[in-house]
Amino acid sequence: MSVLVELTIFPTDKGESVSPYVTRVVKIINECGLECKLGPMGTCIEGEWDEIMAVVTKCYRALEVDCDRIYMLMKADCRKGAVDRLNGKVHSVESKL
Amino acid sequence: MSVLVELTIFPTDKGESVSPYVTRVVKIINECGLECKLGPMGTCIEGEWDEIMAVVTKCYRALEVDCDRIYMLMKADCRKGAVDRLNGKVHSVESKL
Amino acid sequence: MSVLVELTIFPTDKGESVSPYVTRVVKIINECGLECKLGPMGTCIEGEWDEIMAVVTKCYRALEVDCDRIYMLMKADCRKGAVDRLNGKVHSVESKL
Amino acid sequence: MSVLVELTIFPTDKGESVSPYVTRVVKIINECGLECKLGPMGTCIEGEWDEIMAVVTKCYRALEVDCDRIYMLMKADCRKGAVDRLNGKVHSVESKL
Repeated sequence: MSVLVELTIFPTDKGESVSPYVTRVVKIINECGLECKLGPMGTCIEGEWDEIMAVVTKCYRALEVDCDRIYMLMKADCRKGAVDRLNGKVHSVESKL
Repeated sequence: MSVLVELTIFPTDKGESVSPYVTRVVKIINECGLECKLGPMGTCIEGEWDEIMAVVTKCYRALEVDCDRIYMLMKADCRKGAVDRLNGKVHSVESKL
Repeated sequence: MSVLVELTIFPTDKGESVSPYVTRVVKIINECGLECKLGPMGTCIEGEWDEIMAVVTKCYRALEVDCDRIYMLMKADCRKGAVDRLNGKVHSVESKL
Repeated sequence: MSVLVELTIFPTDKGESVSPYVTRVVKIINECGLECKLGPMGTCIEGEWDEIMAVVTKCYRALEVDCDRIYMLMKADCRKGAVDRLNGKVHSVESKL
């Protein structure tokens, strides 16, 4: 089953600007070997459930080190028999516009 | 205050594939005059609060016509004194990678 | 159409503890005249679309006054011909357990 | 670190009413041994990260069996040195109203 996840995770005890922490997380995702895409409100990752959960856990662990409060939001759209949905979902809609 | 919203809205009474309904919504957003960006898990829109809410309401009304159950998810990141965050947030992180 | 919304809204520029701001928001919701229920991760409100949106906007305006960055998350489950879903959805599941 | 999660997970290929599937998930959460609370828009669970993720995975696996498309939403509020936040967060706000 293709699992397409959008992950948003940031500390809430570090003041208004948190881009160093977001960068830390995005680096982990970029290097995880799964297809991914950075967006303005979160990073999308596509893979199998266990692969995705392993990356999400790695991101959490990386913030846990020096953050006292962390907010996380994860949206997942899981579909059997589907592939390359990171690009496919956008193309499917764009082709109908 | 710059309001950056990611909107995800779809019917849950129309079976597994809902891209015609998503397309209907994306058309409304594309034509609303605000900066926007289609992504795999939602569409980002940037503007002032009232402008954004007017578009979100328009999307809801367009589905309400023939959908009996609708699921919506809206994430908003609002920040004073910030502009062009639709591109700026991604660039800020990419420049630090 | 019954609109059941869960609203989570808080400033991210006020440090780790934000309960005074959450309290400000919950007061507005409690006094709005719609059915509502405070939970550990957000407050649920039931009503018509325009009623709900008016309350959400009031909550945003109340934080905008003295917060420089605000994060908001809104989940909505909208269903035609349904009533009292604030209690009904939980009871429906509990009766099947 | 206390991890407070709100989990919403349901199939989108089973038509308008999905309470049998939600019930299946809530049973798993109720029997997992962690503190939990059923709400109108999701179920809150409190525990350590790995415990929570194990339960979320179990819920996903239980739906994967006979669902072709699954939507999931997970919100997490993680805080060091905090306990009993399932009740504590609500009480903290209620005491200030």
